Amino acid sequence: MNPNLRVDEWKITEEGFNPEMNRASESIFSIGNGYMGQRANFEEHYSGDTLRGSYLAGIYYPDKTRVGWWKNGYPEYFAKVINSPSWTGISIRAGGEEVDLSKCEVLSFRRELNMKEGYLYRSFRVRMVNGLEIEAEVTRFVSSADREAGVIRYTITPLNSDTLLTVESSVDGDVYNEDANYNEYFWEEVHRESKPAYSFMETATRKTGFRVAIAARSTFRVNDRKPVEGEGIRNYEKYVSIYHNEDLKKGDTMVIEKYVAVTTSLNHPAKTLHSRALDLSKKFAAEGFDKMLNRQKEWWKKIWDESDVVIEGDPSAQQAIRFNIFHLFQTYDGHDERLNIGPKGFTGEKYGGSTYWDTEAFVLPFYLSTADSSVARNLLLYRYRHLPKAIENASILGIGGGAALYPMVTMNGEECHNEWEITFEEIHRNGAIAYAIYRYINHTGDYSYMLSGGLEVLIALSRYWSRRASFSHQKNSWVILGVTGPNEYENNVNNNWYTNLMAVWTLRYTLENIERIRKDYIEEDKQLSGEIMPGNDETALWREIAENMYFPVDKKRGIFVQQDGYLDKELLTTDTINPDERPINQHWSWDRILRSCFIKQADVLQGIYFFEDDYDRETIKRNFDFYEPHTVHESSLSPSIHSVVASMLGYTSKAYELYLRTARLDLDDYNREVREGLHITSMAGTWLAIVEGFGGMRIKNDRLFLNPVLPEAWKSLSFMMRFRNNLIRISTTMEETTIFNLSDRPVPVTFKGKEYLIKPGEKKSL
Amino acid sequence: MNPNLRVDEWKITEEGFNPEMNRASESIFSIGNGYMGQRANFEEHYSGDTLRGSYLAGIYYPDKTRVGWWKNGYPEYFAKVINSPSWTGISIRAGGEEVDLSKCEVLSFRRELNMKEGYLYRSFRVRMVNGLEIEAEVTRFVSSADREAGVIRYTITPLNSDTLLTVESSVDGDVYNEDANYNEYFWEEVHRESKPAYSFMETATRKTGFRVAIAARSTFRVNDRKPVEGEGIRNYEKYVSIYHNEDLKKGDTMVIEKYVAVTTSLNHPAKTLHSRALDLSKKFAAEGFDKMLNRQKEWWKKIWDESDVVIEGDPSAQQAIRFNIFHLFQTYDGHDERLNIGPKGFTGEKYGGSTYWDTEAFVLPFYLSTADSSVARNLLLYRYRHLPKAIENASILGIGGGAALYPMVTMNGEECHNEWEITFEEIHRNGAIAYAIYRYINHTGDYSYMLSGGLEVLIALSRYWSRRASFSHQKNSWVILGVTGPNEYENNVNNNWYTNLMAVWTLRYTLENIERIRKDYIEEDKQLSGEIMPGNDETALWREIAENMYFPVDKKRGIFVQQDGYLDKELLTTDTINPDERPINQHWSWDRILRSCFIKQADVLQGIYFFEDDYDRETIKRNFDFYEPHTVHESSLSPSIHSVVASMLGYTSKAYELYLRTARLDLDDYNREVREGLHITSMAGTWLAIVEGFGGMRIKNDRLFLNPVLPEAWKSLSFMMRFRNNLIRISTTMEETTIFNLSDRPVPVTFKGKEYLIKPGEKKSL
Repeated sequence: MNPNLRVDEWKITEEGFNPEMNRASESIFSIGNGYMGQRANFEEHYSGDTLRGSYLAGIYYPDKTRVGWWKNGYPEYFAKVINSPSWTGISIRAGGEEVDLSKCEVLSFRRELNMKEGYLYRSFRVRMVNGLEIEAEVTRFVSSADREAGVIRYTITPLNSDTLLTVESSVDGDVYNEDANYNEYFWEEVHRESKPAYSFMETATRKTGFRVAIAARSTFRVNDRKPVEGEGIRNYEKYVSIYHNEDLKKGDTMVIEKYVAVTTSLNHPAKTLHSRALDLSKKFAAEGFDKMLNRQKEWWKKIWDESDVVIEGDPSAQQAIRFNIFHLFQTYDGHDERLNIGPKGFTGEKYGGSTYWDTEAFVLPFYLSTADSSVARNLLLYRYRHLPKAIENASILGIGGGAALYPMVTMNGEECHNEWEITFEEIHRNGAIAYAIYRYINHTGDYSYMLSGGLEVLIALSRYWSRRASFSHQKNSWVILGVTGPNEYENNVNNNWYTNLMAVWTLRYTLENIERIRKDYIEEDKQLSGEIMPGNDETALWREIAENMYFPVDKKRGIFVQQDGYLDKELLTTDTINPDERPINQHWSWDRILRSCFIKQADVLQGIYFFEDDYDRETIKRNFDFYEPHTVHESSLSPSIHSVVASMLGYTSKAYELYLRTARLDLDDYNREVREGLHITSMAGTWLAIVEGFGGMRIKNDRLFLNPVLPEAWKSLSFMMRFRNNLIRISTTMEETTIFNLSDRPVPVTFKGKEYLIKPGEKKSL
Repeated sequence: MNPNLRVDEWKITEEGFNPEMNRASESIFSIGNGYMGQRANFEEHYSGDTLRGSYLAGIYYPDKTRVGWWKNGYPEYFAKVINSPSWTGISIRAGGEEVDLSKCEVLSFRRELNMKEGYLYRSFRVRMVNGLEIEAEVTRFVSSADREAGVIRYTITPLNSDTLLTVESSVDGDVYNEDANYNEYFWEEVHRESKPAYSFMETATRKTGFRVAIAARSTFRVNDRKPVEGEGIRNYEKYVSIYHNEDLKKGDTMVIEKYVAVTTSLNHPAKTLHSRALDLSKKFAAEGFDKMLNRQKEWWKKIWDESDVVIEGDPSAQQAIRFNIFHLFQTYDGHDERLNIGPKGFTGEKYGGSTYWDTEAFVLPFYLSTADSSVARNLLLYRYRHLPKAIENASILGIGGGAALYPMVTMNGEECHNEWEITFEEIHRNGAIAYAIYRYINHTGDYSYMLSGGLEVLIALSRYWSRRASFSHQKNSWVILGVTGPNEYENNVNNNWYTNLMAVWTLRYTLENIERIRKDYIEEDKQLSGEIMPGNDETALWREIAENMYFPVDKKRGIFVQQDGYLDKELLTTDTINPDERPINQHWSWDRILRSCFIKQADVLQGIYFFEDDYDRETIKRNFDFYEPHTVHESSLSPSIHSVVASMLGYTSKAYELYLRTARLDLDDYNREVREGLHITSMAGTWLAIVEGFGGMRIKNDRLFLNPVLPEAWKSLSFMMRFRNNLIRISTTMEETTIFNLSDRPVPVTFKGKEYLIKPGEKKSL
């Protein structure tokens, strides 16, 4: 972890410059607005280690697949959200020398991510090789109020001498991805202009042909004099800039403001991108830095009013949960059904910004509880739009008849991943996608989605399960062979309990909803029957499979068995692993991991987490007690689910211990990989551990259930809940819980097993 | 298949030129002498589709591994026998136009691989664009008598007009591998010389630093005039040549002879390569083409005298088996323990010329029966030399304590392959390496190898099995989890019956030989005890594991079960597969193959093949009857083993049908992949199907067992056998079998269950 990071409830602060930590800090201090994102790269030239990264949601490149040995069914490419032209560059020369924190003596350095108000601040004081000392302050943000806007204010003051200052503000299209499979460049220049008033560049992605236009206006001002335009321009291939020279007296301050508009063909016709970018940048400059920042602050105030989690007595936990909420809303705010949540958001290249099952299994409940229901609905529509591709994908793998297998990793609905044991076999993702439909309707009560998309997806998923299962005469049951469960430390296993469970549940849930629509939605049923409804033979088969699916169990231990043969392993607990060999995935050969009993992340327990009401407490306890000690939690998604289950079992200190492993995963850089980007999707897991775990929040039978148990370290916990368009604040201490209904309708709540109706505006203490 | 190929008992002949088949023919007509090999590329310039390939045994390049997703334990490189500088080039210009079969009208074309005498012949007549008709004949060979020699005689005759002929004879170092992972060049030039008398080039491989020197002397002669040197030279980077102009009258014949010496640092000190190559090429030129070819013919005569298989009544089968024997001896003749048999020999790039378990499991018996015992012993020594690397390899994968895991694919003892399910899990290769020691001693009676290397290998292998097996409390037995058996259409399975069998057998065989040495070799035991002998605790554990290993069986069917869970599959037979979808590995997604019941190659039956005496005939029959119908035989190694077992069961027509699938695999190009090279190691399988299958040959208890059953299509079969330094010819018809002892000692034979002693020189008809 970075010893320079400071705990502050509303800010991430780094005091002092540590070049070795720079990449990690670039990830942590990233900014984004759902539309675009920017790693915390310096504006000025930096010759030290850095991963430059500007990303635009949905702008991807199909990077040609790299494999060792080709397997039939592999996709031809891996879609990557790519590093896009950089709009942040402001290089500074003072007394003829380039300001470069890698070459100057850094006298002081401070970086601050203001989570409350949504901007990045940086200040530094350096002594240059020529003896000049300068001080700089930089504030930048990508605006959530004006999503196409990036704004920077950069001030510089020479401290110990007069100097000639040269400032150059650029747009740089010469960018590449470090993780490009074949060192290809992904961008081509389409057009550029360089004027004293603005720099403009339009580029296009190769193959996919996305267009991106960037217009940047920069103004230069000394102290409180009138700002001026640049005095000269540069215009090279893939590079445009405006520069300005100024003789500064010692103590004078030069202020550069840069107003950038980024427009893309994803949102506007390509031919309008140029004029739109120019117009917008003009408008932003006219409005000015302070006004734009104020609107940004307002936007974030609203977010925090409706989603904040307050932890008293533990500033470090407080900082961490806000950090997580902040980054989730920076990554995705749900206004565009074509977008999704990449595991690293806009903070790095790894995993290519694509969509994983993380969204449905871990992130959805966060947005259901903290944002308007349209946000979660857009996440469902994202998959609905991809249904034809999912049907094609199943068919490529030999399962036809309208069956859908959603891809493991995707940008546009097509599979991108190329590890057979994951791509082809980790089919439980289909289950999470079905479960998300249930979760959405359960939480919001919005059954209309079932009629206008949900059922169609469920039918295609049920078709998949029914064709993917096969009948074992040996077991006289249906089986699902050759899968990888959530625990990716087992590959190509038979009858993964969790996968079989999700298959059966999906079949049942689909059948149930077909029944319900037949009964309660006569008109809609008529229409759906003509279009998508399965015939009786098909539903009979689904019922047969659901009723006669094989589930591995160990009667002696009273547990569900992760997969056939799991109990043949040497059943060691994780405390027997040499601490120097943790995480095992960095130290052990893959086959050693596979043949060991160690579990990467919740697998049987993931199923129990989803369907806790189907199992009695003792069963859950036996399974938790058996599996958790074999679990190495080497997925960032693991501890949070375990923490929720532990809380539910009353294992509060275990729940807290597990929560700690996930809460500050990135801030404390447990896995020494933050340099590659943040674990955005896992951040939702931390929220789950708090709200579903310690808060004991559930939605069942159209009621809000609460069952809070605080960790000892905390004085109080309070969180916001959206439930059926009502907003509720729940505040809990060791002694009592207060439920504050901020909406104008009564809310039915079950608190520790007792039913209440909380009136509009009422603050009920229990 | 190539319709231009003709059946001839001693030759492969191609009549007429088919450019689309050229790559395939280049493979089929390859020549080699164990030291070097050469695809049948044209000497003259050819602008059509060709895979140029000159290979030198043991000269490899560690090509950087390419993977999609890295797994701990993967090797950094894949060692490849690489395309080396080309010595065959003789380009021809006639009337100012290049002779290029891709651009001329080909009036006639003939290519002939003379297997009896060991050379490649080609003749063609073409009409050039300029109207000139010429005729050419080319004979070339790499000498098995002088292993560093490559020799070409090229004659050209203008048929319809006088012409100015320009001939250029070159050595070309500008070569590359098509299968290079990152399009790198593997060679650097060290030195070159170009003189009228000779061309010389010395090159070095990058990274590995192997040096290769090539000296080529070319003479030019018209009709029977005196040959002359070239009149000019060319000398460019990586290219040296000699050229000669001659005004030819219509009907004159220009004869070019090229004497090439290839020396390498694998065999001589680097600094001597230059002079040795020059001296040798001078010596070869002085001896002359005809004399050198005569010695080549003599060498091959001796090979055929001692290894020929004669099939009467089936010329196509006759041609095929000779083709196979010919290529096996072209690839490896056993004089160098540092070399081995790559799956494609010197005929293509695929599989990189590396060593696989094919050698021990399929090829060894061929050399045991057809060559001096030193040849097979060198194959064992190859692995003995690699023992330290195999111990290191096991340790990388987490199994220490002196345990050895031999690599799946190797050049120098280090693992090269990078598919976890193969590299890490296909550990049964260790079993074949142990079994090869048994086979060698059983066949030759040479127990000295056990004392001077064999036991050391066996102990390290037993250590591996004992540490790789684990105890299952569930099964109350030892189990081996997470393996891939010979049937690579199942990955990461538990308790592959074959693997468990090889493990137990290895443990037992090692223990047995430790006992034997303790008892019968007191002196040697003393020495070995100080060096390698395991302690009593260790041998006790081996005994415990061997006695309590778990083997999956199906009592109802009375069969061994390929692995845990195999019988949960839908047990379809191969006749239900749509013929358009064969081979399934080219048509089905990998996961569909994995979850299907279809078997790539002998797995349970491979174990039964190795240890047939341990099972009664009914058991073997039940297993064959169960497994063969599920087997798609998509490894070229599969049909031959099945054919041997079918012969043994008296399923002669099934045995013949299976034999046919392997016998002409390359000549008839069943899998449309001969263009990539020949299936050299599978060729030994065909020999097994004939000698062990139809011939019923076994070596047991120091006796030669014979039990011949002829396929109906054959009038007679005769083959040679080496057994304990005796040479025997077995000739069999439907009516009788004649055993001819060509050696000077009596040979104990069991013929159809009855014992005989065949006297020296005796021809016994039975």
